[in-house]
Amino acid sequence: MKLIRIVAAGVVLALGAAAQAQTDPLPSWNDGPAKQAILAFVKDTTTQGSANFVPPAERIVTFDQDGTLWVEHPMYSQVMYCLEHVPDVVAKKPELKNVEPFKTVLSGDREAIAKLTMPDLMKILAATLTGMPVEAFQAEVKKWIAEAKDPRWKRPYTDLTYQPMKEVLEYLRANGFKTYIVTGGGQDFVRVYADGVYGIPSEQVVGTAGGTKYGYGKDGKPFLTKEPKLLLNDNDAGKPEGIHLMIGRRPVAAFGNSTGDQQMLEYTKAGDGARLAMLVLHDDAKREYAYGPAQGLPATKVGTFTQALYDEAKKDGWVVISIKDDWKRIFAFE
Amino acid sequence: MKLIRIVAAGVVLALGAAAQAQTDPLPSWNDGPAKQAILAFVKDTTTQGSANFVPPAERIVTFDQDGTLWVEHPMYSQVMYCLEHVPDVVAKKPELKNVEPFKTVLSGDREAIAKLTMPDLMKILAATLTGMPVEAFQAEVKKWIAEAKDPRWKRPYTDLTYQPMKEVLEYLRANGFKTYIVTGGGQDFVRVYADGVYGIPSEQVVGTAGGTKYGYGKDGKPFLTKEPKLLLNDNDAGKPEGIHLMIGRRPVAAFGNSTGDQQMLEYTKAGDGARLAMLVLHDDAKREYAYGPAQGLPATKVGTFTQALYDEAKKDGWVVISIKDDWKRIFAFE
Repeated sequence: MKLIRIVAAGVVLALGAAAQAQTDPLPSWNDGPAKQAILAFVKDTTTQGSANFVPPAERIVTFDQDGTLWVEHPMYSQVMYCLEHVPDVVAKKPELKNVEPFKTVLSGDREAIAKLTMPDLMKILAATLTGMPVEAFQAEVKKWIAEAKDPRWKRPYTDLTYQPMKEVLEYLRANGFKTYIVTGGGQDFVRVYADGVYGIPSEQVVGTAGGTKYGYGKDGKPFLTKEPKLLLNDNDAGKPEGIHLMIGRRPVAAFGNSTGDQQMLEYTKAGDGARLAMLVLHDDAKREYAYGPAQGLPATKVGTFTQALYDEAKKDGWVVISIKDDWKRIFAFE
Repeated sequence: MKLIRIVAAGVVLALGAAAQAQTDPLPSWNDGPAKQAILAFVKDTTTQGSANFVPPAERIVTFDQDGTLWVEHPMYSQVMYCLEHVPDVVAKKPELKNVEPFKTVLSGDREAIAKLTMPDLMKILAATLTGMPVEAFQAEVKKWIAEAKDPRWKRPYTDLTYQPMKEVLEYLRANGFKTYIVTGGGQDFVRVYADGVYGIPSEQVVGTAGGTKYGYGKDGKPFLTKEPKLLLNDNDAGKPEGIHLMIGRRPVAAFGNSTGDQQMLEYTKAGDGARLAMLVLHDDAKREYAYGPAQGLPATKVGTFTQALYDEAKKDGWVVISIKDDWKRIFAFE
């Protein structure tokens, strides 16, 4: 009985594999150097007998999130979350009402909000992301991510994930790669939806992380409180440092889109054997956004793609993904 | 061709599964409450339709290492590593020769070394575990772990892993659980041998962790240097905090042996549904060691098993594993 069932499963698997071989694993990509680089890398590292064969345990691939897996303009979604939660914070601590930067946020003056400095933003992040039990925070993010909408597309932020990149995630996993998010965004924030949206479990999300504090509730039950104590700033050099802390292996492939990903891409590319480093260039103002001086486009506060980064990519053999040229379709809803 | 191979694989799998069903998954355990608790927990959480069924993604189990997966007496292996590497450090920095605590370690006076204070030990740890590239440290630990021998058994430390616990690790993994080490020991240290010895990949080792610093070598290649900066003290409350940081989920089962594991066991047990918390009691002076006041045995500097811990275990429904009564065989070489 059991034997028959397993043999039947084997047949189904075999038929599935045959069908798979005839299907394009990256249908949202135009045929071009970026798509070819991904296909060639996977073939080279997973074919038994290839000089660049990578054992399954070492097939670690890391992806930046904002601007690489989903839209980061006009503002990081997590910053939107924080700004929208300032009224909740002030409701609990009314003394903050007339204190900056909370006063500016409460004013709703978009221009003034856009001009907030980094130290101001840090105060807002600390106030809205810490001081509560881990589970309470997770529940709040879950609710927000289901309800909040992007101002341009009027859709949930999770709809604004890039379909071509989701295909890359699935294609890599189907070939035995372990896919990680390595984001400058909050680790606890991204973990809430990463599994549902990207198929990436919480233990494979590395992000900017704060400490927690173990304590006991009135019922004697233990719980963790989110503390305003930075453990890992997962940007720039913090990305390879975070990868070492959380994974302990050097990735064989990495995907990013800004100077915040530079060190992760360098670190990945510097390993032995076949390595893939890819950089998403936002050059499609019509279908998404265009930014970055490499294309003669204006630099922005987020997702900085500088000329120096572009030059390093070319020199070091990273593959630049042009959204305009390489992506046939950007979003699943299109 | 491919089809035939996959069907054949299905048959082999089916025959293997049939054989497995008739085999005791925990042959080194005596039949008793501890063994029964493990078997019952796995059945309860993995049987479809069970009220306590746990989806595979949530099957997270954490294991302390020292005293839970391998021998911790007379001294943690990692402390042995550090003491034995003091001469290397002094060779590079001769000015330390007459500075305490290095002077005492170099004297070889065992009694004096045993009396070193915690701040002294910290100085030795910092000097021997940091200040070098990550890869250099990994190579050094790999070499040491292959050559160093335990003073009592005259065998590599990795031979002194507990066979009954290795069976538990394999049994849990065969039932879809993800097994993690959550150790007070150094994360980078344990990761070197965890895969070979326990079948646990580096990304599933959580331990006391220091920061690293990203930089470039003379050849322009990037590398990480181990820094004397503590990021996570993975003991006591640091264990659930480390679990949240590195895994982001509450374990459904946890294994420990000392007060350093108390909070991890509490945190695990406080979750909903079926939970398993187990505590190894070292009560077998003949075959291993006996320590802990719960058995009227002398307390020791390492692996503290207090009366309060024993009382909490009884009150909170943790299962105490008696090495004397529950383990038929302790080591694979016996």
